[in-house]
Formats: sequence, C-alpha cells, structure tokens
Amino acid sequence: MELTDAQGAEIGAARAAEARTLRPTVPALEALLYTPLPVLDHGFLRVVDYMGDDAAIVQAARVSYGRGTKRVQDDAGLIRYLMRHRHSTPFEMAEIKWHVKLPIFVARQWIRHRTANVNEISARYSVLDREFYIPAREALAAQSADNRQGRGALLDGEEAEEVLRLLREDAARCHDHYLWMLNEGEDGARADPSRRGLARELARMNLTLNTYTQWYWKTDLHNLLHFLSLRADPHAQYEIRAYAEVMLEVVKAWVPITAQAFLDYRLGAVTFSAQMLAALKRMLAGETVTAESAGMSRREWREFMAALGREA
Amino acid sequence: MELTDAQGAEIGAARAAEARTLRPTVPALEALLYTPLPVLDHGFLRVVDYMGDDAAIVQAARVSYGRGTKRVQDDAGLIRYLMRHRHSTPFEMAEIKWHVKLPIFVARQWIRHRTANVNEISARYSVLDREFYIPAREALAAQSADNRQGRGALLDGEEAEEVLRLLREDAARCHDHYLWMLNEGEDGARADPSRRGLARELARMNLTLNTYTQWYWKTDLHNLLHFLSLRADPHAQYEIRAYAEVMLEVVKAWVPITAQAFLDYRLGAVTFSAQMLAALKRMLAGETVTAESAGMSRREWREFMAALGREA
Amino acid sequence: MELTDAQGAEIGAARAAEARTLRPTVPALEALLYTPLPVLDHGFLRVVDYMGDDAAIVQAARVSYGRGTKRVQDDAGLIRYLMRHRHSTPFEMAEIKWHVKLPIFVARQWIRHRTANVNEISARYSVLDREFYIPAREALAAQSADNRQGRGALLDGEEAEEVLRLLREDAARCHDHYLWMLNEGEDGARADPSRRGLARELARMNLTLNTYTQWYWKTDLHNLLHFLSLRADPHAQYEIRAYAEVMLEVVKAWVPITAQAFLDYRLGAVTFSAQMLAALKRMLAGETVTAESAGMSRREWREFMAALGREA
Amino acid sequence: MELTDAQGAEIGAARAAEARTLRPTVPALEALLYTPLPVLDHGFLRVVDYMGDDAAIVQAARVSYGRGTKRVQDDAGLIRYLMRHRHSTPFEMAEIKWHVKLPIFVARQWIRHRTANVNEISARYSVLDREFYIPAREALAAQSADNRQGRGALLDGEEAEEVLRLLREDAARCHDHYLWMLNEGEDGARADPSRRGLARELARMNLTLNTYTQWYWKTDLHNLLHFLSLRADPHAQYEIRAYAEVMLEVVKAWVPITAQAFLDYRLGAVTFSAQMLAALKRMLAGETVTAESAGMSRREWREFMAALGREA
Repeated sequence: MELTDAQGAEIGAARAAEARTLRPTVPALEALLYTPLPVLDHGFLRVVDYMGDDAAIVQAARVSYGRGTKRVQDDAGLIRYLMRHRHSTPFEMAEIKWHVKLPIFVARQWIRHRTANVNEISARYSVLDREFYIPAREALAAQSADNRQGRGALLDGEEAEEVLRLLREDAARCHDHYLWMLNEGEDGARADPSRRGLARELARMNLTLNTYTQWYWKTDLHNLLHFLSLRADPHAQYEIRAYAEVMLEVVKAWVPITAQAFLDYRLGAVTFSAQMLAALKRMLAGETVTAESAGMSRREWREFMAALGREA
Repeated sequence: MELTDAQGAEIGAARAAEARTLRPTVPALEALLYTPLPVLDHGFLRVVDYMGDDAAIVQAARVSYGRGTKRVQDDAGLIRYLMRHRHSTPFEMAEIKWHVKLPIFVARQWIRHRTANVNEISARYSVLDREFYIPAREALAAQSADNRQGRGALLDGEEAEEVLRLLREDAARCHDHYLWMLNEGEDGARADPSRRGLARELARMNLTLNTYTQWYWKTDLHNLLHFLSLRADPHAQYEIRAYAEVMLEVVKAWVPITAQAFLDYRLGAVTFSAQMLAALKRMLAGETVTAESAGMSRREWREFMAALGREA
Repeated sequence: MELTDAQGAEIGAARAAEARTLRPTVPALEALLYTPLPVLDHGFLRVVDYMGDDAAIVQAARVSYGRGTKRVQDDAGLIRYLMRHRHSTPFEMAEIKWHVKLPIFVARQWIRHRTANVNEISARYSVLDREFYIPAREALAAQSADNRQGRGALLDGEEAEEVLRLLREDAARCHDHYLWMLNEGEDGARADPSRRGLARELARMNLTLNTYTQWYWKTDLHNLLHFLSLRADPHAQYEIRAYAEVMLEVVKAWVPITAQAFLDYRLGAVTFSAQMLAALKRMLAGETVTAESAGMSRREWREFMAALGREA
Repeated sequence: MELTDAQGAEIGAARAAEARTLRPTVPALEALLYTPLPVLDHGFLRVVDYMGDDAAIVQAARVSYGRGTKRVQDDAGLIRYLMRHRHSTPFEMAEIKWHVKLPIFVARQWIRHRTANVNEISARYSVLDREFYIPAREALAAQSADNRQGRGALLDGEEAEEVLRLLREDAARCHDHYLWMLNEGEDGARADPSRRGLARELARMNLTLNTYTQWYWKTDLHNLLHFLSLRADPHAQYEIRAYAEVMLEVVKAWVPITAQAFLDYRLGAVTFSAQMLAALKRMLAGETVTAESAGMSRREWREFMAALGREA
C-alpha cells in the first residue's frame, strides 16, 4: 500500500489539527485516527471519525433500564450482560466511519451488509487507478473438496506461477485498454485528438473484479459487530476476513470492554440446537449418544462434534 | 422543564470534561452540548454527541465524485448541488445523538421514522415520573372544519377551562392509581406491606398518553433532515413541530451551509406535478388557465394556487 | 373480540372472492386468510396477504448457492442448513401482511422492530373505540423479586379486585372525557352546539395506554422469525407473547419446514459463551467445574446451569 | 437473451401450475408472471411473485386515515392524494419479487438501493456463464463535454470498431482464463488431472465487470418507485435505465392507478427551490427576472430555465 504525496499531506494535516471537545473521546483511537492500516497488497483501512465509547453504551442502557441498573452492576458487568442477552440497541449508540481501499470483488460481498452508509468512488466520474489485488502465494488455494465455498490445499509449482501470471496480465491488459478507450490526456484534453474517447461509465466495464476501489463506510457498533461476526469468522473468504481482522483490532482500541464481551459471547460462542442440547444433557449424565439416537443428520452431528472439539 | 439536582450535576460534569481530539469539531455545537433546550411545558432536547460537519459532507462527496469536484465547485456550491439533486448519501456521513423528553403521544408519531437508533426509558424497569403535557391556552384548538388532521379556532371560555381541568385531573388520577398499584416504597420495600403490588409492566397501562417519556435518539443528518421536512412543516401536529423547530436551530449551528441549502431546496421548495408544470408554462405564455383546462381536480388546483400565493 | 357487522361482511366478501393465480399458494394459510384470530380480551390477528412458501425459500437459496445445492440436499435439509447457519437472506424472500388489533402499550413494544411496514389507525383522523385491555385474573401478577422486568406471584383477593376496578374505571372515565372533549355528534355535527370541541389530535392524549389500536403490519419471514424469537420467548411480556404465540401457529401452517427448523435451531436452541464451552468440555471429560474455575460471574453460572437443566 | 432448455421447462411448469387463492390478484400481472422480459443483449427481468394491488394500497390508507376517507374520495383520488403528499406508507403494503439477469457493473449501481431483499448467484459456489454485455453501436457514446457523468456524441468508424473488439476480446480472454484456472471438468472431476485448480472464490476475480450475474430482488412498491424515480430518469446511466423502463411497464400492468399517479407527481414533476418559486411569482406578475435578480447561481438558473422549457 502506497499513498500519494497529496494523500500523505492530507493525513498529516488532519492529524495536526487538534481541537478541544466536550464529547466522549478515546485516546487509544485518537492515536490511530486517519492513519492507513495496510490490508492485502494495496488495500487499507483508515478510521476517519467515531462517536461514543464504552461509557456511552452504558449510559444509553441506563436510560432504557433505569436507575436500578446503577446499583446492581458496574459498567463492564452491564456491557457483558447486554451482549450475552442480545440487547443490541445500546451498541447502536456508538458509530464509526472508515475509509477503505479494497478490491471490487470484496466490495461486492461487503455491500450486502445494508445497515451502513456508503460513499464509493464512482467510475462514472473518476478514472480508477491501475492497482489490482494479486493473491500472495500463501493465499493461492485450490477449491476445497468437501466444502463448496471453502479453500483446500495451496497451489504450487508451475500451476501457481501460471495463475499469478494470468491474473497479473489480464488485469493489466484490461486496464491498459480501459485507458485507451477513455483517451484522456492531461488536463482533460484528448490523448489522441483524432478520437472521441469512450464515456467513463462505459469504459469501466472492461476492468477486472480485482481492481481496487475505495469508499467511506459508516456504521454503528452493533452492525459493525454483526459484520465482524460473519466476516472475521473462519468461514469467511480470506480476503474480506483480512479487513475484518484489522477492524476487530481497532474495535479493541476503541471499546475494549465491548470487544472482550464480543469475543466471549459472540465470536467464541457456539449455538446448540434443541437436539444438540438434549444430547449434551444425556452425555453429561454419562450416556453414550450417537447421531441416530440424538435425531441429528450426519452433517449436524459432525458440526456438533466439531464444536465440542471431538472427532465425529 | 426542571432538572433534578443529580441531572444538573451530571450535565455540569460532562460540560467540564474537555478533551483534545483530532476529529472534526464544531465550536457552535460544542457550546450547546449536553444543555437541555426546553420544549413544551416539561420537555427538552439535548445534543449528547455528534459526528462530522459541513466539511465532512463535502469530503464524502469528493470520494464519490472524484478529483473533478475540487476544481469546479467550492464547498458551499457542492453542498447546495447535492441537496438540490437529492444526492443524499454524503449527508448520511454526519450523525447526531439527542436526549429527548417528550409526551408519549408525540413519541408514537416520532418513532414512525424507522432509520434511527433509539433507547427509550422502559416502564417495565423504571417508574415513570408524574409529569404530563397540558397544552398552553394558545394551543388548545378545535378540530379544523376543512382539514381532517388540522386544528381550527382556539377554544375559549368555559370549554377551554373544562378541557384543561379534565386533562389535568385524569392524568393525575391515573398516575396516582399507577403508584398505588405499584405499591413501591423507599428502597424497593412495599409501601403497604399487606399488598404485593402490581408488576411495573402491567401498572404502566393505566397511564395517559400525555405522560412524559424519555429517549436517546441517534440519526444521520440525511434522515434528520427528512424528519424535519415532515415535522417542521406547518401540516405537522404542533406538539411534534415544537421539537422539530428547536432541532432545526441546532442544525443551523452544527452545519450552517447544509441548513441553508435545506431551507432553500427542501423546506421552502415546492413540487409541481406534470399537469401543474404544463399549466405554469401556459400561464407564463400569457394564457388564462383553469382547473378544467389544466386537467386538475379542484383540490389539486387549490394546492397549486396556494403554492403560487394566489386565490383559487 | 367482537366484529362489527360491517367488518364481518367485509371479511365474508374477501373470503368469497376466489381467483386463479400462478403464484405459490399455501392451502393451509388460505384457510386462515382474513379470519380474525382472537388474542387477549378484545384483540385479534388476521392474515390479510402473503407471498411465498417453503419452496420459494429453497428456490432463492438455489439462486445464491447454485446448481450444487440441488444434488446434495433435499428441500428440508437445505432449509434446516440455512436456519442453522444463519443464512438469512432466503427467508427474506417470503412476506406476510397482518391486520392486528392490540393495546397501545403493546404496540409501543412491537414498533421497536423497525424492519417492517406499518399503517396504524391515526387518532388525528379517527375516533378510537371504547375498548381497553383489562388483564384476566391469571395474568394479574406482582413484580418479580429477582427479575427487574418479570412477573412474580399472582395478586389475589381484595388487591386484585381493586386493581381491576381501577384499571376499568380509569380507562372508561378517560375515554368518556375524550368523547366529551371531541364533542362529535352524528354525521360530524357538534354534539353540544354551544361548544367547539377539541381537535382529535389533542383529545387523544387523554386516553390510557391500555386503549386498543389497530394496524396493518407487513414483514418478511426472516424479520418475523426474529420478532418471534424475542417475543415468543418466556422473557417477553405476557401480553405481546400472546400475539407472538398465535403468529407462530400461523407460521407453522404457512411454512411448516421453516417453522420446525426455527423451533429446533432458534427458539429451542441455546448459545454458550467461550467460557461456557470450555467448561462444558471439561465437564464432559469428567471434571468438576465451578463458577470460579470456569471464570464466570455468578449470574452467568446460574444461566449456564439453567440451560443445562441443573441447579446452580 | 436465450434460456437453457432446463430454464424454459421450469418456466413452463410454473406457468402451468395454476391454483385458487383468496388473495388480491391482478390478471394483467398474472399474464406476465415468470416470463423473461429481455433487457440489453443478454439480460432479462422476470416477475416471480407479487403481493397486493391498487385496492390493497387504498385499504391500508383507510386503516390509517379512518372512516372519513371513504366518504370524500374514491380510490383513484385517494391514491393520487397519497402520492402527491408523499404519504408513502400505504405504498409499502404492496410487494414484488423479480428475477434479474444483469451485468455486474449495473448490479453494483443497483445494490446501492438498500431497502430490498437480495439473493445473488454466488461465484464462490457456482461457475459464472460466458456471457458479457457488449453495448450496441447506438449506445457507444463519448464522454459528455459538459456533464461529468453523462454521455455525448456516438463513437463511430474505426474507434467504435476497436472499442467493441477490445470489449469482446478482453471479456472472452478473461473468462477463458477463469475457466482454465478453475480446471473443472464434467461432474466435478478435474479437467487436467495434473492440476489442482484454483478455488472458485479466487478465480472469479479475473472476470470483467460486464460479465452477467443474476439475482432475486424483492422490494415494496414505495421503494420500487423510489428506485424508478432515480433509475428511469434521463440522468441515469443508459444500461440501468433499460431495466428501469421495463420495470415501469410492469408497474403499469400491476397497479395502473398508482403508476399514473407516479408519472404525474413524481417522474413528470419538478421541484422548485424557494428562490425559483419567488422568481416564478415575479414572472407570473409580468416582471423580467434574471439569475442575478433571482439570487441563483448560473447553474441553478440553467436548471430553472430548462424545467420551464426555456433557453437560459
């Protein structure tokens, strides 16, 4: 990830412009503000604004649940209680705004999370930079044999070389042709005065899905945690997970109590079905239980055993 | 509107706890932060947090529309362009959080705006205070004769006296009985040890709809402006409009360029139908147009004439 | 619950107007269509329209997950897999529309579910009927001693009598005064020609929160199930749970496979935190685990034991 | 647009499976149900389900506004009133579900409309077909000189030939390499047994943005009309407008009264700012008004004159 001089100067200026505020402020997040955190080969995440902290979540909860909550529970206990019991509205009271640079195919997964505000660079107005995501060798995996959406063993040798070569060449050639079609020279003049140049909104269709795009993405903490619960999960595609994992680190700096509760009660938690719960009770009573006697499909049984760290 | 000592102390503490931040900061809004702004007889609005300013809206728009926007338009011009052409996403990049005290029947209108985050005091957990909205004499209006949702002439004399007496007495009696049913004494003990006391979640049903409630309400600027376009409108019920008008003043302090654009292109704007536009063109060409020749219903024609400041 | 003659006639007409359609159709739900299902003392639920069935959910999932899903899984297996792994979007492809009559304090809880479409009778336009929710004796409970939002033992004897008397009298008196303030006679004339009558939008504030209101409420199946997971839960207030339980029966008629998966993987399921899961594994290995050695608060430990059907 | 035999058979089966229903039914829409309506070179739109009709909108409005609406207005008058005054909730009571085949760059614009339900074919699970959008000659336009997002004159001659050649070749080559990377043969076996084949979720990044994708898209009528007001507008990119225009024809078949009101009060309407309205009044009074004397920027003045069909 490289920044242009102009971007570097803008970030420097933003980080120099300190002001006084009466709002809740989080020094550990201020320390990260505006600075690009690298993700993948050319991507980044930057926090560009935030609202609220752990205390603001507590304060919103106390509005709802009233005076009583003050006596019985301290702040951490209350946040953990809210997380455990999925009382989600107090977590909606904190908000964060990101600037993200990401490959288009990742952006297409990401945008499915609808409860967020988005401003994406528009290739109807702007010319997209010549930057593509090319997987590192250790991310170049084969299709998983037993999981229709997963990855299996790594590619190696000539096959890996050839895949990387194709990805690089196709992206570069498509972008070269995109620029040729646009026919844009310096200062808006035509590069080749004998040609009109194709409209930007049309030329962009020649780009490949690993081309990088950028957006501002703003969401409340509850919806961010929901995003992370799906995208920081091992089942998520590696490329979006790379973003989610950096975001999770930022959340730890921002709202450490909430982040720990999220790890304990969401990311590290497991949900057992009615059948699994019944089987568990029998197992705890010393009974030997099988998929059949538990009334589970083989697939469910495998998931159940995996959750308990046992062999199916 | 009166604050308890505890509330006053909390606000004082919040206003004393200044911190340094790198975030966009608006001094004119900082000056208002946390302070209750009175609305109606016992209600208030307080800004308890905010994110972004006019410049943040511009910055988000420049991400979308790219380098070109920098050259051609200054910030105010860009914001006005965005507002005029209903490019709403940049306005979603600013956020504000309010603490509101309001009568329940107003809360029921307000909550219909779904794109917001809410934490309301829960009468399942807390005992609601003995405060009711009683309209001022100049708000005590009869049903409008020609508008099914509007108000007409003011009530006066004995009728006004009697209405106010009934509103006061019914609300007070219902709240007295609510407290009696709860049977709550000091420190959670029973007021009358011979009675169990009714569960809070049941007792609350005896309260009248003018009882005050409180909530935290957080929304982005785009949705706030949509709320204001409906609720600061003369057709809105006076009681919710009283809140909207105070909010509009806060918006002017927070994002003055956006606020002015909103007044020019939304609140002060008018939409003409295809038929109205055709009639306008004929009128500008010197023709005399009637409801019939314009193909409008009498109601539309009245609305059209009213928009032009003419008699129907 | 009683219907007026006009309502009865309307329902009869709707049920007589059969048409031919190519859309997915569910005979078991057609049999219920339009008919009011009684809830509480004067409330009801009616299904007034629906879109989709179990097969439509499967079809949407197959669009997403492609040809492969056809081979490996039958419809029920696929629906159960989607529910278990919280693949929620296919369940959004079915939609249902209800007509509900419910007390205002229940409507205030219900409306917090934002992802739905609502048209509520407006007391700015219409006069609300003289119907109030008065709890049955077996719902007249005291505040729970150990749960701030729950109910404890039933009230009995004189206290119960007195509570019911107050609820009845206050609601009736408030409604009487509401009508008096309105001063509406037959056909829009004034009941007492010497008085103006108060605007409807003002007079309504004198009503108590147990007054019945009505609305159309339309939502997709995913959001309906989320509503039911919170409101058909034993922690939900009895009055809203009464509606949720009738809705759940309707869901069983409409999408029986989805309903069963919901019972198994959501309503009957339990989520264990990272700490609980670790404790479980130790318990299954024969170890004796305590709250302390498991790193749980006493409250969490109680919840954990309760989930396993054990004493804390 | 060509359908496979399997798709044709499925559509035939769906259109043959008629059932009886008590739900509101629209014969003109039933006649279109399931049938693909061609858009662009390989795309289509199919209505796969719907809920409600013009009468259902009226019915929902009458719930809100009560008995009074029955007397004063007939159905068409009420729908037109609701549309004119932006009473949007009754239009949310009708719902429609589409199956759409569309180029990825169009899907990326479309998905920005968040209030909808979507199931898109996932290239993590499925192999995308070898179909690309190649513009027709009459859509192959140059960048507009005066509008940063618009199209200007058509390309012609050699430049047009070369652009089309590049679009075709790059898309085809990228898809060929995509298939090579996948290394999928018949029945899941490897095409070349000496190679592992790249995971689908990675290989897809080599595709160009004009590759066709498919999704189910379900939305309520209010949000559909909002989509159409933006996407059937002349400022929308031609490719998404092509879909919007077909959808608008379907809306006319489905809810003809609402569609006409939408054309009159939304698509064909124009909004004048406070300044424009003031200028209009002066012009109607016979005054000569200029941009300067009206307090408008030159851009606004041009927009104002354009709305009135005059030269700036």
